[in-house]
Amino acid sequence: MGWGDLGALGEPSKETPNLDQMAAEGMLFLDFYTANPLCSPSRAALLTGRLPVRNGFYTTNAHARNAYTPQDIVGGIPDSELLLPELLKKAGYINKIIGKWHLGHRPQFHPLRHGFDEWFGSPNCHFGPYDNREKPNIPVYRNWEMIGRYYEDFKIDLKTGEANLTQLYLQEALDFINKQQGSQQPFFLYWAIDATHAPVYASKQFLGTSQRGLYGDAVREIDDSIGKILRHLQQLGISENTFVFFTSDNGAALISAPTQGGSNGPFLCGKQTTFEGGMREPAIAWWPGHIPAGGVSHQLGNVMDLFTTSLSLAGLQPPSDRQIDGIDLLPVILQGKLIDRPIFYYRGNEMMAVRAGLYKAHYWTWSNSWEEYGKGTDFCPGQSVSGVTTHTQEEHTHLPLLFHLGRDPGEKFPLSFASEEYQQVLGRIAGIVQQHKETLVPGQPQLNVCDKAVMNWSPPGCQKLGKCLKAPESDPKKCSWPH
Amino acid sequence: MGWGDLGALGEPSKETPNLDQMAAEGMLFLDFYTANPLCSPSRAALLTGRLPVRNGFYTTNAHARNAYTPQDIVGGIPDSELLLPELLKKAGYINKIIGKWHLGHRPQFHPLRHGFDEWFGSPNCHFGPYDNREKPNIPVYRNWEMIGRYYEDFKIDLKTGEANLTQLYLQEALDFINKQQGSQQPFFLYWAIDATHAPVYASKQFLGTSQRGLYGDAVREIDDSIGKILRHLQQLGISENTFVFFTSDNGAALISAPTQGGSNGPFLCGKQTTFEGGMREPAIAWWPGHIPAGGVSHQLGNVMDLFTTSLSLAGLQPPSDRQIDGIDLLPVILQGKLIDRPIFYYRGNEMMAVRAGLYKAHYWTWSNSWEEYGKGTDFCPGQSVSGVTTHTQEEHTHLPLLFHLGRDPGEKFPLSFASEEYQQVLGRIAGIVQQHKETLVPGQPQLNVCDKAVMNWSPPGCQKLGKCLKAPESDPKKCSWPH
Repeated sequence: MGWGDLGALGEPSKETPNLDQMAAEGMLFLDFYTANPLCSPSRAALLTGRLPVRNGFYTTNAHARNAYTPQDIVGGIPDSELLLPELLKKAGYINKIIGKWHLGHRPQFHPLRHGFDEWFGSPNCHFGPYDNREKPNIPVYRNWEMIGRYYEDFKIDLKTGEANLTQLYLQEALDFINKQQGSQQPFFLYWAIDATHAPVYASKQFLGTSQRGLYGDAVREIDDSIGKILRHLQQLGISENTFVFFTSDNGAALISAPTQGGSNGPFLCGKQTTFEGGMREPAIAWWPGHIPAGGVSHQLGNVMDLFTTSLSLAGLQPPSDRQIDGIDLLPVILQGKLIDRPIFYYRGNEMMAVRAGLYKAHYWTWSNSWEEYGKGTDFCPGQSVSGVTTHTQEEHTHLPLLFHLGRDPGEKFPLSFASEEYQQVLGRIAGIVQQHKETLVPGQPQLNVCDKAVMNWSPPGCQKLGKCLKAPESDPKKCSWPH
Repeated sequence: MGWGDLGALGEPSKETPNLDQMAAEGMLFLDFYTANPLCSPSRAALLTGRLPVRNGFYTTNAHARNAYTPQDIVGGIPDSELLLPELLKKAGYINKIIGKWHLGHRPQFHPLRHGFDEWFGSPNCHFGPYDNREKPNIPVYRNWEMIGRYYEDFKIDLKTGEANLTQLYLQEALDFINKQQGSQQPFFLYWAIDATHAPVYASKQFLGTSQRGLYGDAVREIDDSIGKILRHLQQLGISENTFVFFTSDNGAALISAPTQGGSNGPFLCGKQTTFEGGMREPAIAWWPGHIPAGGVSHQLGNVMDLFTTSLSLAGLQPPSDRQIDGIDLLPVILQGKLIDRPIFYYRGNEMMAVRAGLYKAHYWTWSNSWEEYGKGTDFCPGQSVSGVTTHTQEEHTHLPLLFHLGRDPGEKFPLSFASEEYQQVLGRIAGIVQQHKETLVPGQPQLNVCDKAVMNWSPPGCQKLGKCLKAPESDPKKCSWPH
């Protein structure tokens, strides 16, 4: 989902009344970022509070390449990483993930081995259908075991776009919240649905209801579901005791536009890029009785802050034995404070850009390669900024491209290198970058090796279902990451 | 001002709290258009309820050229046109224009000869400063006579961007509203300020207050002024008896970006073009106690509708002796109805595009000429859609380019000519276009002839001020309209 997909953020169809209402009742963040323009690293960053280059969710197979966890990936979230649910357990929380995990699908990476108590969802994207010979269909888990596979037991009709998965995930969320009512235990629900990701789907009741086509139908279903969850919290009388945060894991995938791609509003390009369209996210904090209604914040925020903020809400300290990139947003959310902090835009192993205040400096620019672009893969359709949306990896480390995101949110007009403004700002940003680079200890890269043998051939529970498949011989090789 | 300049429409700095509040208390139109992507024709259309090609505000000097009323223009609003204030007089209204008239500056075109009772403002844009030899500075009128000139008596500091004009126009509005309090006469106030037009200015108290630079300062001052006008109506107890409508005369001028140009949100290109960025406008109707708060309308609206709607509010019928393009929006505004009607996108003497429902068909595409583009004039900076944002005038009359503005508000993905959708939609739109063209009677073009002798050398009142200048000999020639 993209920044521009919310009515409150200017989507011209205004089809998100529940999210707009959530913003009106809570705080809308206009300058909130993901840690990576791709799903797996972004979600790993959210749950660890650390940049992917620290927690291992990146590749060194080539320079500045996006990587994620397809089902032939060998790696996943390292045991050495401390995940938010692991830490929340210390404060007595029961933790559930509903939806896409995406932090590795091999047994050692299972979410219930990393702090979650319950899981309903899948380890990978709902790509497919596969033939179960060259590639198995993606399993859907309930807790430790698979209970079926996408396209087989969990239908997705690619022709009509119909699938009731978001409804299943919604019901699961409402049931989980209900179940906690008798208990004194606080809960953490990570509602990590994968709807709006291509291939886009929506339930029958939403199909054809949007001005925006199938993608809009999916957005409307998500919006409706979030409305139902919030109302449910209110009806149970626990809304004033429940902190809710809405955001997205990367910008809308313009490569899928217009039938399956969303909107990044006035921002440049989309998913896969370190331009604003790839990393600035819609974000809303909601906590009636605590967060003043109708708040709008220009705090530079990041999904990693949800780690630290959640710990703070639970009365816990973040780990002190490692670098945590997320900050505690509670002073921002509850007292309207502004905390000075930079935003780093990474693509794989490279810091592509940094934002400080209203200025953003690009140290590297790259959309994708000429070769990929020539094949029709375009992350910036209709947009082309000379020297900015480049198709060769352009290094600007000695003379970064500088943009003022207030006057120029679309990153279309680089500041003149000769201007006084450029000189002044660069001095400040150079200091931030130097400090960041000097203290950075990259983690062991997890997304380098792929192997067909590790695919979801025989997930736990497959025997009961008669759904075990024969794995091919192991043949590990470097994953190919073209972007 | 552009569609994307309002916080409520997704401007990332959210600096228009008063306009956003106006929308929250009234009805926000998401699909509202101007009649032309340039100021003079747009304002002529608003006041006549007719397309510029009918009321004469266009040129035939060349094909599909934008034209307006610089001070060497010979033409202006024809006497044969009936303007909104002329008609409102029949219902006893007192009519005032504050700000830029732009419908011709020669004596016969004076707003007080076309239905207005009072005027405070200027006949042309605040371009300058001029030397008063080659070109005179633009006069500012109070009613029949000039009371000074821009840059001389009405200061605009191009270095700092400081000018207090919007404050003068605000005070004039508040005073006019006050004055009507003793009277039983209804009033029509056309608050036609020219702020945000380049050269952009703002008052001292707003300079440097926006994240968006000088342009944002100007937007904030407009927003603040509108808030003050609305609150004034409420304090006087007449808000439930006063219909207020906010809109803009064309999309943001991206040619002036980033320091002096605004935002057209997710839409393509800007002012001067017939893409959505040039003609879709922010629009809010406000009438407490009558318009349900928080309404959002997808009605295809047009500035020309303000003519017909205003007449309807005054209990008047539109003229029946001529084609009126504006429709009465009251059923939309008060009862939430949707009226099926097309939008025509004209550039000069050519219908470039037409919108019906969510579909838009381009019959001609043109950004500007290669020659102008080569000189650095770019109406679509950072945006380039192959075959769409063309630099030669491309005719598509036999096979129009078709866009679905719901799935693709940015006009980036033309529908395949071979698709069933294309065939079905084109049939419907072709009928609309045929009917339009068959019944169209173009008016006498007013924007063909320019003459240095007609400039504002000696406007009425100049003698008293000692500000009469000597006009050069008459030398009428075809105006040059490069765009």
